[in-house]
Amino acid sequence: MKRLVMLRHGQSVWNLENRFTGWHDVDLTDQGRDEARAAGQLLRAHGYRFDMAYTSVLKRAIRTLWIALDELDAMWIPVIKDWRLNERHYGALTGLNKAETAEKYGDDQVHVWRRSYATPPPALSDDDERHPRFDPRYAGLAADQLPATESLETTLQRVLPYWESDIAPTLRNSDTVLIAAHGNSLRALIKHLQGISDEEITGVEVPTGQPLVFELDDQLRVQDEYYLRDRAVPGA
Amino acid sequence: MKRLVMLRHGQSVWNLENRFTGWHDVDLTDQGRDEARAAGQLLRAHGYRFDMAYTSVLKRAIRTLWIALDELDAMWIPVIKDWRLNERHYGALTGLNKAETAEKYGDDQVHVWRRSYATPPPALSDDDERHPRFDPRYAGLAADQLPATESLETTLQRVLPYWESDIAPTLRNSDTVLIAAHGNSLRALIKHLQGISDEEITGVEVPTGQPLVFELDDQLRVQDEYYLRDRAVPGA
Repeated sequence: MKRLVMLRHGQSVWNLENRFTGWHDVDLTDQGRDEARAAGQLLRAHGYRFDMAYTSVLKRAIRTLWIALDELDAMWIPVIKDWRLNERHYGALTGLNKAETAEKYGDDQVHVWRRSYATPPPALSDDDERHPRFDPRYAGLAADQLPATESLETTLQRVLPYWESDIAPTLRNSDTVLIAAHGNSLRALIKHLQGISDEEITGVEVPTGQPLVFELDDQLRVQDEYYLRDRAVPGA
Repeated sequence: MKRLVMLRHGQSVWNLENRFTGWHDVDLTDQGRDEARAAGQLLRAHGYRFDMAYTSVLKRAIRTLWIALDELDAMWIPVIKDWRLNERHYGALTGLNKAETAEKYGDDQVHVWRRSYATPPPALSDDDERHPRFDPRYAGLAADQLPATESLETTLQRVLPYWESDIAPTLRNSDTVLIAAHGNSLRALIKHLQGISDEEITGVEVPTGQPLVFELDDQLRVQDEYYLRDRAVPGA
């Protein structure tokens, strides 16, 4: 049985400040680091040994992974960072306070942007300094690959090709893979693996810092799914 | 002009305890972490932006790299970890105190093991728990790839093929590459790049935590070599 473990990054500075984050590269808070440490300790207690890990190019996910790997005494495993595992891009809402945005646009509109499957927030203009084309980490990408905003649907449309081209082939040739990423990039993978509908996936919440385990057969079909916190620690 | 920066890891726990380390996976001390932080800050002050970084599979080098990348706000760059950048394997001396070893074998013998080009220390036996065949990070390697001891010469014989197959091609297609590694794997690269003789290379000391810059032309010929600490910070 193969195992894929998903880990959503711990609390970030902008989670704490209640701001839309998306592709903004904000760091973890001390609490976020503690969450990552606890995740690594839980994985260690269960004897996890990873063959490989994937993460985004955003430091809140990378640091979550680094801290967890340190706790696992597995800093040496191969790590691939890819922009396609980034959080959903929040467009022109990036950096805005969620409460202020609700006051300005109304709760209903903000709810649609946050929770609909296909409706993206307003796009960033090309000359907005928040646009990813100004960020050196995306310098190698074509202009039409760079989002100025994303819905959950368009997030899926860049996450799933990466799953097919990179993560799934790795998993076919290995036993245990870790993905440290974000609420919406993980939703994309969960929707694909579990065949969840467009309507239902918007209601799926992945808690931060909680290792979510998928047991998969050789064809990468899900045999079981559970949070590791819900399983007894072997020998404890 | 291309730039290759070499960074030897900061002080480790076994440096402090004066023990032969080699492939033993010992961590940095607080001082070692401070050295890594200072290296990252110096690189940042000089405006370095790396396209890619290489390191070994030993945590003292990986952590040095992680800390430096954090200081550079470049946690997102691709990092490749490879065992061929490991420190020289110290064979049966691994873990022994250097002073005690000198008492037992004599200063002259220990000097030969430490400073000759071609004489390796006594090999580990196959059933020694320190043998790399018991370490999961080397599980994918063939038995004849795994050293039970190494001289500087045999260290070169595994570092240089990796330079040719991986690092040099990357550098031909990019501008700025960082290698965070160890005294002897860096010696191997310096010997190759500068054409230093077998006799002379054993006297070349790379200080810990000091970025060593090679400026290279498109054919990767060295145009200049210097420690970054010896250059004025731009605009300072």
